[in-house]
Amino acid sequence: MKPALSSPFLRACRREPTDYTPVWLMRQAGRYMPEYRAIRERLGFLELCKNPEAAAEVTLLPVERLGVDAAIIFADILLPVEAMGVGLEFSRGEGPVIRRPVRGAADLERLADVDPREATPFVFEAIRKVRAALKERVPLVGFAGAPFTLASYLIEGGPSREYLDTKRLMHDDPAAWRLLMERLVGVTVGYLNGQIAAGAQTVQLFDSWVGILSPDDYREFVLPHTRATVNGITAGVPVIHFGTGTAGLLELMRVAGGDVIGLDWRVDLGEAWRRVGYDVGIQGNLDPALLLAKPAEIRREVEAILRRAGGRPGHIFNLGHGVLPETPVDHVIAFVEMVHELSAR
Amino acid sequence: MKPALSSPFLRACRREPTDYTPVWLMRQAGRYMPEYRAIRERLGFLELCKNPEAAAEVTLLPVERLGVDAAIIFADILLPVEAMGVGLEFSRGEGPVIRRPVRGAADLERLADVDPREATPFVFEAIRKVRAALKERVPLVGFAGAPFTLASYLIEGGPSREYLDTKRLMHDDPAAWRLLMERLVGVTVGYLNGQIAAGAQTVQLFDSWVGILSPDDYREFVLPHTRATVNGITAGVPVIHFGTGTAGLLELMRVAGGDVIGLDWRVDLGEAWRRVGYDVGIQGNLDPALLLAKPAEIRREVEAILRRAGGRPGHIFNLGHGVLPETPVDHVIAFVEMVHELSAR
Repeated sequence: MKPALSSPFLRACRREPTDYTPVWLMRQAGRYMPEYRAIRERLGFLELCKNPEAAAEVTLLPVERLGVDAAIIFADILLPVEAMGVGLEFSRGEGPVIRRPVRGAADLERLADVDPREATPFVFEAIRKVRAALKERVPLVGFAGAPFTLASYLIEGGPSREYLDTKRLMHDDPAAWRLLMERLVGVTVGYLNGQIAAGAQTVQLFDSWVGILSPDDYREFVLPHTRATVNGITAGVPVIHFGTGTAGLLELMRVAGGDVIGLDWRVDLGEAWRRVGYDVGIQGNLDPALLLAKPAEIRREVEAILRRAGGRPGHIFNLGHGVLPETPVDHVIAFVEMVHELSAR
Repeated sequence: MKPALSSPFLRACRREPTDYTPVWLMRQAGRYMPEYRAIRERLGFLELCKNPEAAAEVTLLPVERLGVDAAIIFADILLPVEAMGVGLEFSRGEGPVIRRPVRGAADLERLADVDPREATPFVFEAIRKVRAALKERVPLVGFAGAPFTLASYLIEGGPSREYLDTKRLMHDDPAAWRLLMERLVGVTVGYLNGQIAAGAQTVQLFDSWVGILSPDDYREFVLPHTRATVNGITAGVPVIHFGTGTAGLLELMRVAGGDVIGLDWRVDLGEAWRRVGYDVGIQGNLDPALLLAKPAEIRREVEAILRRAGGRPGHIFNLGHGVLPETPVDHVIAFVEMVHELSAR
């Protein structure tokens, strides 16, 4: 099987010219899809993640249905930390809950060491299955949570509004914070390299909640650890570095690393690309809420984003965050077609 | 009584040099203060807002206790829209709930016209009492919600994560959206000018939730209405234009108007001021969560922010959002002292 090095998605990751702008969507396999909901009738969320057959099937759904230019392995950013022994649960509709959150130095000691080969073999197996099924049609993206976002889940125990406990640990016990981050860097690097060994051709680092921080806190408490993570990833595999609410952090995220910087929708893509520099690629950035609007409205914004990217090699089209459950499937299909049609060179 | 035109706060609003950087805090009269909690034992939140005697007392508390350079009238941004007949309630700990939210054109017709003199005479009366009590010690800031933030409350019916109904109305029925925004511009202008007539010497426009929008949506659906609001405010009274999560919107907010642009903590103040231009003042921008940290940590960040402001006239020190209820009062007192001490010229 020849490597898919000539796919538009992988070419864009390397900022090489493509015939059209490649597009995929975060959470492109998710609740908005009837086929996904049918599978979830049978399997709980964690069950699905841990079933390589079913996870591979779900990963492939959007490739068949939407015509996207990349698949992303179906998994959850908290899988590799589950084995640390924090009591991870997914309650229906509520998102992840961590029953034994980490609040201080003492809690760190009870965190188990994680070997991803033992902790998440099902993810690697699902990746092998997907690669075999894809037959080089489109590349496969692996992913992991960035250390800050993982730490914030471990500390808060679930979704948070203010992230006060996370900031408290950072400011009040910087030594414990550093220790926790270093542990998470190790887990994340091992987990991503395991995905790459199994067949992931690009990896995306999700620092989803990092936008809650001031630039000073990011620089001091996050950047060195994200950099260590990026530096630990198998050489030659493109890294997409994504966060939300990061309009004030983009230059620092770029310093932390990544071949492509992923944007949310709350920043002008042209302006953001200028700020991070044209020596990295850029991914984004349609507001997921816009996929609920009439296709004419979607089209107008797709045009605006393509105009801002200016046809420069290195743009990967995506939403600014995951597809919303309320999204009509036919709008997603129309969106992918629009990107291909309007960007055709 | 001579006007307090020479106060550091009002001088900073006009970008005139001051002996030190003036400082106040959003929500400086709030739950973190034992004196405030004692008053709230007796009075519900709306009762307190509607009792000019008590509202004036609460407004004055931080001036006595903290040594801040401005008072801000104790009120809520939803008071002027309550009279539109949407069923506003404040449930303890839950924040505002609107029992009859606005979801489409039909709902617009049942919104009552509001004359602020009839709807919020208690706010104007509280302002007169505060001015009389302050005796020109420090200036008094009035405030209102900006039309977008008010609209988002009316539509969502309470706090929201995605603001999907707001965006849906915007995109699916732009005519209804415009009508709603125009109604809110009228209410807000009348309400702010009423506050100014009663004695408010500066006004702050809170577009607290506008950071959820893409720059394109802001430009099309918000900017013209915010501009109409700013243009309607009594000439000569400084306007502070504030929002959170706005690192990607700052240039557009500046176009919309205001003499001072208020920042949250998620952007570098020096960079933000450069972007909006030195022909406006800048307010901000310490992370409210940092007031929970040790004073040495607070001091380090106060120094960093002052360094970024560069001693340029027109900086008003503030938090990036309201004081958190968990904040120790002595940290707030120390913070105000630090700003005064470290900025003394």
